[in-house]
Amino acid sequence: MKNIKLTIEYDGKDFNGWQKQPDKLNIQGTIEQAIERITGEKVDLNASGRTDAGVHAIGQVANFKTNYELPIEKWPLALNANIKKSIVIKSAEEVEERFHSRLSCKRKTYRYVINNSKYGTAIYRYLETHIPQKLDIEKMQQAVKHFEGEHDFKAFKASGTSSKSSVRTIYKAEVLQMPDERIYIELTGSGFLYNMVRIISGTLVDVGLGKIEPNAIPSIIDSKQRERAGKTLPPNGLYLLNVEY
Amino acid sequence: MKNIKLTIEYDGKDFNGWQKQPDKLNIQGTIEQAIERITGEKVDLNASGRTDAGVHAIGQVANFKTNYELPIEKWPLALNANIKKSIVIKSAEEVEERFHSRLSCKRKTYRYVINNSKYGTAIYRYLETHIPQKLDIEKMQQAVKHFEGEHDFKAFKASGTSSKSSVRTIYKAEVLQMPDERIYIELTGSGFLYNMVRIISGTLVDVGLGKIEPNAIPSIIDSKQRERAGKTLPPNGLYLLNVEY
Repeated sequence: MKNIKLTIEYDGKDFNGWQKQPDKLNIQGTIEQAIERITGEKVDLNASGRTDAGVHAIGQVANFKTNYELPIEKWPLALNANIKKSIVIKSAEEVEERFHSRLSCKRKTYRYVINNSKYGTAIYRYLETHIPQKLDIEKMQQAVKHFEGEHDFKAFKASGTSSKSSVRTIYKAEVLQMPDERIYIELTGSGFLYNMVRIISGTLVDVGLGKIEPNAIPSIIDSKQRERAGKTLPPNGLYLLNVEY
Repeated sequence: MKNIKLTIEYDGKDFNGWQKQPDKLNIQGTIEQAIERITGEKVDLNASGRTDAGVHAIGQVANFKTNYELPIEKWPLALNANIKKSIVIKSAEEVEERFHSRLSCKRKTYRYVINNSKYGTAIYRYLETHIPQKLDIEKMQQAVKHFEGEHDFKAFKASGTSSKSSVRTIYKAEVLQMPDERIYIELTGSGFLYNMVRIISGTLVDVGLGKIEPNAIPSIIDSKQRERAGKTLPPNGLYLLNVEY
């Protein structure tokens, strides 16, 4: 039995998220079907984490176990030939039996892309979130640093989700000014709570709009009150960039 | 009568090119209809040049004349509210009566985007041309410089097009290595013949593949033979970046 680790890019707009669910096009089920078409085996494909409907991935990682005999370097081509163009398998490697994409994960990096031009974008309309009001990037850059370190991120978790520990570590948090009035928010952490990147990004937008002062972030974190943080930004601006093991 | 100059972004994949034609969705007709909806006037919208089906624009320029009274700064918002999301009017300015987007144009810049990764891209599949064979960028960078200057570009013009002068000047020609195995080919010139950027790009790909030597470019230009140049690359990787006056 081989354990195969895939690195996967997908266009989130074409799917109802990663997770398998009946009658809804999803990424997990689509790739599992492609594996079955090749191998004849029904497999479980475990991702580093689910992504929501509309969220994109540049480097999602998932693994599955198979008895099928195929040289490891042939897997990407075989899978890509059996799958929609909105998913690309970028690499495959054989990993040790106990490797698990979610449980073995050490760090993940997400990017949130904001288009801060006055009238937005035609070409990238499904790939960026348009915010027409001018954002103060320097304030956002001051604010984002307060998210680094180990914190209880309960204030930045979608309500109604399960009540396990909401303590996470953010190793690196940055707001980057990019060409053509684009802003990237990039967060690398041990793991992220449900909607956490989108809520942190919404809070940073409030900072950029002058609604929240940068030095108010620590007290918002400490409050553990979801209503103290900003809005959940839409999924189309969010990218899972990479997963480290 | 006011003469209004628009700067326009559009997603080429959603249209059968710039030019107005019956029963085919096109950019010119779509914007003219939006102008008519606002003003009640039928106008002629003149672009700096037609773009083919599938070709994108970041900064196409077009102008039209109107008697309608609307403060100039209100035009982008009014037009964007009356148009598909695959077109964005980025700015409007009032220009002198004799300004003509095509005839007054001094320089244009195009970019061709190649994705040179092994398995291509899911997210940007309509926005980049995938070439899986590894390209030798240094050779392409040597070759592209031979296109600079004033030349008869007959060898780089789609056959069957009209026989006016094919002499053009390229002011700047570059091949740029971008992150994530992307390659940009950027050309700034006095004007471009039909399919010229896509044929030059195809020729540079042949250089990158080792089929054409960089120093063979001058003799291909001099030959004026279309068959000596490379293939016409597909439209989805091509962007009209900006037009200067």
